[in-house]
Amino acid sequence: MDASHLLIAAAHTPHLQAQAPGTVTLVGAGPGDPELLTLKAVKALQAASLVLYDHLVSPAVLAFLPPDAERVYVGKESSRHTLPQGDIIELMVRLARSGRAVLRLKGGDGYIFGRGGEEAQALAAQGIPFTVVPGLTAAQGAAASVGIPLTHRDHACSLVLSTGHLRENRQLDMDWDLLARPNQTVVLYMGVNNLPEICRQLVAHGLPADTPAALVEKATLPDERCITGTLAELPSLALRHQVRPPALIMIGSVVSVRAQLMPAATTAATEGDPALHAAA
Amino acid sequence: MDASHLLIAAAHTPHLQAQAPGTVTLVGAGPGDPELLTLKAVKALQAASLVLYDHLVSPAVLAFLPPDAERVYVGKESSRHTLPQGDIIELMVRLARSGRAVLRLKGGDGYIFGRGGEEAQALAAQGIPFTVVPGLTAAQGAAASVGIPLTHRDHACSLVLSTGHLRENRQLDMDWDLLARPNQTVVLYMGVNNLPEICRQLVAHGLPADTPAALVEKATLPDERCITGTLAELPSLALRHQVRPPALIMIGSVVSVRAQLMPAATTAATEGDPALHAAA
Repeated sequence: MDASHLLIAAAHTPHLQAQAPGTVTLVGAGPGDPELLTLKAVKALQAASLVLYDHLVSPAVLAFLPPDAERVYVGKESSRHTLPQGDIIELMVRLARSGRAVLRLKGGDGYIFGRGGEEAQALAAQGIPFTVVPGLTAAQGAAASVGIPLTHRDHACSLVLSTGHLRENRQLDMDWDLLARPNQTVVLYMGVNNLPEICRQLVAHGLPADTPAALVEKATLPDERCITGTLAELPSLALRHQVRPPALIMIGSVVSVRAQLMPAATTAATEGDPALHAAA
Repeated sequence: MDASHLLIAAAHTPHLQAQAPGTVTLVGAGPGDPELLTLKAVKALQAASLVLYDHLVSPAVLAFLPPDAERVYVGKESSRHTLPQGDIIELMVRLARSGRAVLRLKGGDGYIFGRGGEEAQALAAQGIPFTVVPGLTAAQGAAASVGIPLTHRDHACSLVLSTGHLRENRQLDMDWDLLARPNQTVVLYMGVNNLPEICRQLVAHGLPADTPAALVEKATLPDERCITGTLAELPSLALRHQVRPPALIMIGSVVSVRAQLMPAATTAATEGDPALHAAA
């Protein structure tokens, strides 16, 4: 269904707005593998009649929807939003105010880089009842899937999740002093397009160039890839293997645990590539 | 079942060790609400014949086990382990080597402060096949349940998860400079017994004393409580309301969003307590 059409329809149907307000369920769809949905998310999907879903929600997750549920793709790719965030919120609010029960479906966890907080604020401001169902965030799916514990008493006592994408001013506005501290694990979302600058800044701010680091593309999906190396090597590895979003950057000595946990680990990318085997 | 008995039985039954090795499934049981289990975790529970489970796994989660599954409580409270971690690993390895399919069930996510990395390393070192099923960590359950987004473009671009418990040397060995940075959300696990020192150190290291902060006790369980105030107020609020582990400490301006999201939020603790209403 065309989202802009629906937006206009809702905006120009004043009689709908006189009805009792509907509800919104903000559901985290997890990292991609449908088996990693929560029971609560599955029940919400199975009961849905109208869903607004993002780019990172996998088709296997949408397969839980009833066949006759209306599906509205509102997009959200790193640099190309099908609908701007403000329009997504406006559409969601209008549909709920027209009496619909709206399922708002986001990849990962809506309260971790999912802008679920902003959407919840808009609903609360309009007096629209809503509930939030948390989802596994990509870092958790990747950790379990590729064998990189996020914390470990010998390696990291803190876990830092942050983003590596450009702000509206086109600057990488990241807290380098935070990210370059020792004895922690850092997972960066949406950073793969800025990988050379990220690795350069982290080393400039004090992280050893040989800090173990990994790229995990399409975590938990059938075509997941994991590429490991050092902070210094990561940009060239990403280039050689043409790593594309969505991909996570995992940094810290926990990455070295992978070699112990998955001694025979191979991925689509590593097969027949001795260079990558050496780096992994 | 008595865990030490089983440990001894496994140790002294050499004929069992000659069998083909079993397997271990390390499952994150999530924050407590059984509806927040993943589908994969539910399937593992329903297929289990032997489970080693921790203190923080809720009875409602264990209810998914078949009635005849052997259940071994191995404990893990902040200061009182029923079995030391080394013994848990030894028991798990011995049971798997005897040919059993072992379900290792942990609260939250085994790879986030769950020592799942250590257990996975032990299994890999012994050549025992294992799989890891991630679970929602308590911070995610709390965030959705009490209305505190973990990140928010107006408040926090990074999320830091860390622990606030004492090391074996009885010192609070925390990275205060990391935790006291601005524009981030900090969630501390296992810190409620050291709350006065934690709040004092965070202010000493630069966080404003009026930084919004929350305590979430038993996140996502029916008797969940959320108490909010400032960093300076939190220790006296915890004392007054007798907050007990398991409880999370959430710090950062995202905590202020709760008042917008849950204007009518009341909990067991707040009913009839005007002081807490004022603080919440």
